[in-house]
Amino acid sequence: MSGARNSADTVAHRLIADHLVEGRMEPGTEIGLRIDQTLTQDATGTLVMQELEALGLDRVRTETSVQYVDHNLLQADERNAEDHAFLRSAARRFGIWYSKPGNGVSHPTHMQRFGIPGRTLAGSDSHTCAAGSLGMLALGTGGLEVALVMAGRPLHVTMPEIWGVRLTGRLPQWVSAKDVVLEMLRRHGVKGAVGRILEYHGPGLGSLTAMDRHVIANMGAELGATTTVFPADDAAREFLRAEGREDDFTRITAEPGAVYDLEEEIDLSALEPLIARPTSPGNVVPVREVAGEPIGQAVIGSSANPGLRDFAIAAAMVKGRQTDGSVSFDVNPTSREILQDLTRCGATFDLIAAGARIHQAGCLGCIGMGQAPAVGRNSLRTFPRNFPGRSGTEDDAVWLCSPETATASALTGVITDPRDWADKENVRYPRLDLPQRASVNTAMLEAPLPPEQAARTELERGPNISGLPDFDPMPDVVEGPVLLKTGDDVSTDEISPAGAKALPYRSNIPRLAEFTFTRIDPAYPRHAAEPGTRDGGGHFVVGGENYGQGSSREHAAITPRYLGLRAVVAKSYARIHWQNLANFGVLALEFAHPGDYDRIDTGDRLRLDGLHAALAPGAAPTLQLRNVTKGEEYEVRHRLSDGRRRTVLAGGIIPALTSR
Amino acid sequence: MSGARNSADTVAHRLIADHLVEGRMEPGTEIGLRIDQTLTQDATGTLVMQELEALGLDRVRTETSVQYVDHNLLQADERNAEDHAFLRSAARRFGIWYSKPGNGVSHPTHMQRFGIPGRTLAGSDSHTCAAGSLGMLALGTGGLEVALVMAGRPLHVTMPEIWGVRLTGRLPQWVSAKDVVLEMLRRHGVKGAVGRILEYHGPGLGSLTAMDRHVIANMGAELGATTTVFPADDAAREFLRAEGREDDFTRITAEPGAVYDLEEEIDLSALEPLIARPTSPGNVVPVREVAGEPIGQAVIGSSANPGLRDFAIAAAMVKGRQTDGSVSFDVNPTSREILQDLTRCGATFDLIAAGARIHQAGCLGCIGMGQAPAVGRNSLRTFPRNFPGRSGTEDDAVWLCSPETATASALTGVITDPRDWADKENVRYPRLDLPQRASVNTAMLEAPLPPEQAARTELERGPNISGLPDFDPMPDVVEGPVLLKTGDDVSTDEISPAGAKALPYRSNIPRLAEFTFTRIDPAYPRHAAEPGTRDGGGHFVVGGENYGQGSSREHAAITPRYLGLRAVVAKSYARIHWQNLANFGVLALEFAHPGDYDRIDTGDRLRLDGLHAALAPGAAPTLQLRNVTKGEEYEVRHRLSDGRRRTVLAGGIIPALTSR
Repeated sequence: MSGARNSADTVAHRLIADHLVEGRMEPGTEIGLRIDQTLTQDATGTLVMQELEALGLDRVRTETSVQYVDHNLLQADERNAEDHAFLRSAARRFGIWYSKPGNGVSHPTHMQRFGIPGRTLAGSDSHTCAAGSLGMLALGTGGLEVALVMAGRPLHVTMPEIWGVRLTGRLPQWVSAKDVVLEMLRRHGVKGAVGRILEYHGPGLGSLTAMDRHVIANMGAELGATTTVFPADDAAREFLRAEGREDDFTRITAEPGAVYDLEEEIDLSALEPLIARPTSPGNVVPVREVAGEPIGQAVIGSSANPGLRDFAIAAAMVKGRQTDGSVSFDVNPTSREILQDLTRCGATFDLIAAGARIHQAGCLGCIGMGQAPAVGRNSLRTFPRNFPGRSGTEDDAVWLCSPETATASALTGVITDPRDWADKENVRYPRLDLPQRASVNTAMLEAPLPPEQAARTELERGPNISGLPDFDPMPDVVEGPVLLKTGDDVSTDEISPAGAKALPYRSNIPRLAEFTFTRIDPAYPRHAAEPGTRDGGGHFVVGGENYGQGSSREHAAITPRYLGLRAVVAKSYARIHWQNLANFGVLALEFAHPGDYDRIDTGDRLRLDGLHAALAPGAAPTLQLRNVTKGEEYEVRHRLSDGRRRTVLAGGIIPALTSR
Repeated sequence: MSGARNSADTVAHRLIADHLVEGRMEPGTEIGLRIDQTLTQDATGTLVMQELEALGLDRVRTETSVQYVDHNLLQADERNAEDHAFLRSAARRFGIWYSKPGNGVSHPTHMQRFGIPGRTLAGSDSHTCAAGSLGMLALGTGGLEVALVMAGRPLHVTMPEIWGVRLTGRLPQWVSAKDVVLEMLRRHGVKGAVGRILEYHGPGLGSLTAMDRHVIANMGAELGATTTVFPADDAAREFLRAEGREDDFTRITAEPGAVYDLEEEIDLSALEPLIARPTSPGNVVPVREVAGEPIGQAVIGSSANPGLRDFAIAAAMVKGRQTDGSVSFDVNPTSREILQDLTRCGATFDLIAAGARIHQAGCLGCIGMGQAPAVGRNSLRTFPRNFPGRSGTEDDAVWLCSPETATASALTGVITDPRDWADKENVRYPRLDLPQRASVNTAMLEAPLPPEQAARTELERGPNISGLPDFDPMPDVVEGPVLLKTGDDVSTDEISPAGAKALPYRSNIPRLAEFTFTRIDPAYPRHAAEPGTRDGGGHFVVGGENYGQGSSREHAAITPRYLGLRAVVAKSYARIHWQNLANFGVLALEFAHPGDYDRIDTGDRLRLDGLHAALAPGAAPTLQLRNVTKGEEYEVRHRLSDGRRRTVLAGGIIPALTSR
């Protein structure tokens, strides 16, 4: 292993070393990784399939690639069903597994059916990192990167620091895995793990099941982490055994004396129920601090609390009781398999009897596909994100918490610490009697076709599947107005919204572009189309810290690019969106002096000269950004490798590859 | 009983006589009925609540009024949740029961919890007639009529003819209640029962449960019937016993020798599985005639097949099998209670294991709230209606059939007669072992508040609740263009579409008006707004036979009226829409010589003179309609009672009542 370190290896280092094909394991430098598996979901997957087509791929070269349908399930018109038909045909065409609508949310389903300790996984969904729960190296990234990986190319990432989080003690009653990751968010906020892999270890691990670890790994995305890894130990073996796949188990643990770049410790026994207030996963406070606030909705589900246990605890709490009259108690089963087991063990019955609205298996409200709350009514959700408007409601009030907290609150009608509910109702902590073997049922998971049959498969392209736009190369000089100046932590949800209105257009870039940035400035698409902006040199966006956090959607790069965005100048970037910008030919610049951010106003004309020389291989990574309106210059820099410089100059990866 | 006939009484006559407060039971004349119960659902109910407010009502005067939430459940944005909060507050304010989202579809839920033989029910939903299954006189009507009934006024209807349908024999295996009503539609089409009450009787009744009768009564609406009645016999008693309400039972049967105005006979043992082809419930053919057509979707549910048995037969058929890979098998439980029983008896598990997408309890795809199929892909549904586009997909291909046919087809992937599937798979007809007592669970059904508490309740009015527009009186002269000329059987779905896009605006008339007639002519709202049309004398619509069939939505009268419609001239009208037009001040005229329909073209200017005299009490019901463009005159007539003439001249019921 060319990149192996001298010090004893952590799990993360072992996984990276085993898949390193380019670069060295020095934090901050670019490395290339061989990827064994890919995961795409339908909201990002329709573009990935079109990218495979544009790349001329005949059949995927990965060990396993799976196309899930879990986002666009409402089918308010024909577009969703047509996307599903397209994705099924593309999966059959390219040798990909296809998980039908209703089979379940990608992350837990992938863990159950395909998770293998020691493998790498790239997914066009930011919560792909959840597979770290099984000792995999799982990276959420842009769809185009996933398409390239499916075509056999390595995945390029910046070598992260490894942040060891040592767990001691044991979770108290009514406190669960969600509270562990909320504690990390309470301590470190939504940028706390940028450029890092979170690696959990220590004696506290033993009491966390693999699905508990999924909860923690999943929301590593909310900390900005490159990914999260857990060792593959007895908990992983036990999980694989229950799934009938014990043969897929390999033990992967850190070597004795493994050295982490950073260290953290959490005493599980000292944790209490936590909750993230609106409108950021980083706004974490103890539940007791906000107890008594009235609620209108509580939702159990999503990839952030996907396990049978997460639903079963809710069912045990409501059994023989009724949820409050003012609360809509929504239950989103994670997968068909989990709903099957939940039904088998009686929990589905208990939930229904207590007033739950049981929905089809899928992401649903977590990505704003339905379940939108009324304005100003508190909605408690076991989801990973509560960015403003992501629920489908402007001015929403979404809180993130554990199933225990959501359920106790659904029963009382106000935000409630489950310990206080149990005390008051004289309820003992339930002993969950869950099936030892999962109801493995793969009938909604279609295996890849054999090559000769695949080659004969036609893509079923409905009228809403637009094909990818053509993007022109980067000019030598870019001059244009700042159409938008944002604050810190702008999410990709704000750049290219999800939700029931926009999601059906995920395969239709011209139509989807009309939603770009409209959560921040409804006039942005109109301004971008004005003469002299779009036809001229394009335009700029100025951002604060952690620009482009959240979901991995490459639409957040493609749609502003389609509208003429040439460069973003920000204080810092979220990892996946930074990659997506380069992949689609947008220059991502950082202020050398963050104070310059304050000197630029919306409407100022900015200018970059001599870009071709400035982005030549080996050139210094600094540029001068001229503010034509104010007559000032600012020093800015980029973090592009030579390869990515070529990509940006070509106008993105697809023109770069096709123009060769 | 002032209106009692001399001949021996049918069930329908007995029910009418018991509630007759105005008029005599002579077919074709207007009668007034005392109404015991009302039913409103959310898509029509928000307007009803605003009408109660406009009428200044303090508390409903009915025995029982229930507000259901079953239509707008997707919650793609905040509007649905805000409507729910408004409806809950209005129910609390006016002394109405409130059935929460997730509690279930109004018709079967009403039957289970509130159905009482001998009572009258008026509902702002065209399938209200389903309660005829229990020996009730149940009438679907416009929301405003329901509001007036809630205020203690009688319901006015045209005395129908009573059509006795004598059932003999017994249904063969794999043929069920849905096939009985499909047989009626095969014989008589969607106008077959206009102006009639269908009364089922005869020895074949004994083998039909009350919920089987619900299936048949429900789709009486598709035949255009005023309503359907069944006797309250042992099947009704058995049903009420299972619901824990045997005390509510009263036996109501026809007197020996009862005479029907018309007679029909169906030998149940001669029936076979039937299916309605796209795009009308009247296009009925034997399943075998279309067997082998590939399908993309099969849906079980809706008020047209709501019973536990309808889901249990599907579950028994799929048990241990898998639905076809190309089919989305959607299951919409009718109510929380039915899902609870279905889960209790293991059927939910069998459905999930076979690949069903289990959705929340409600109407869902039946009113175009999700589940839209891809264009051109056949979708088999156990629903009552398949009007074009109602599914949410333009150019849809929706077929209506029994659960047996839908399930057999879901298993094979092609339209399949369940008998042929059973033969081929060597399957014996399943014996369903259903619970003898229903899981009565009323926790999601909130009882009316006591009067003093109700009076203190404030309405929670979200920003999407517009209030009712003010409508001006009918001028003496109306002259304007024909903005639209339609063919026969135009449905209220085409006049004011349902579906996920329009339904959230059901409480917002100006916004909803933008959807008016757009299924037929997308330019209609724009043309109506043109100077000289809207501000001038208004405009006309010309229709064919059975104008305004389908759903009872009064929006189909209000939104064209809001856009300036003054008069419709058609060959004939569906009953509820005809009432709604009068209630909102639109003059509904019929051609005296149907051939004149062919003489009018879109764009012709029509003129009615001297309307105030022509609509005076006692004036002859004929008018001269002048075609200014062509220089012709046509004789037209109306069927308005003196009371309705006053209403139309005043501009509708609310101005008529408020101007007093």
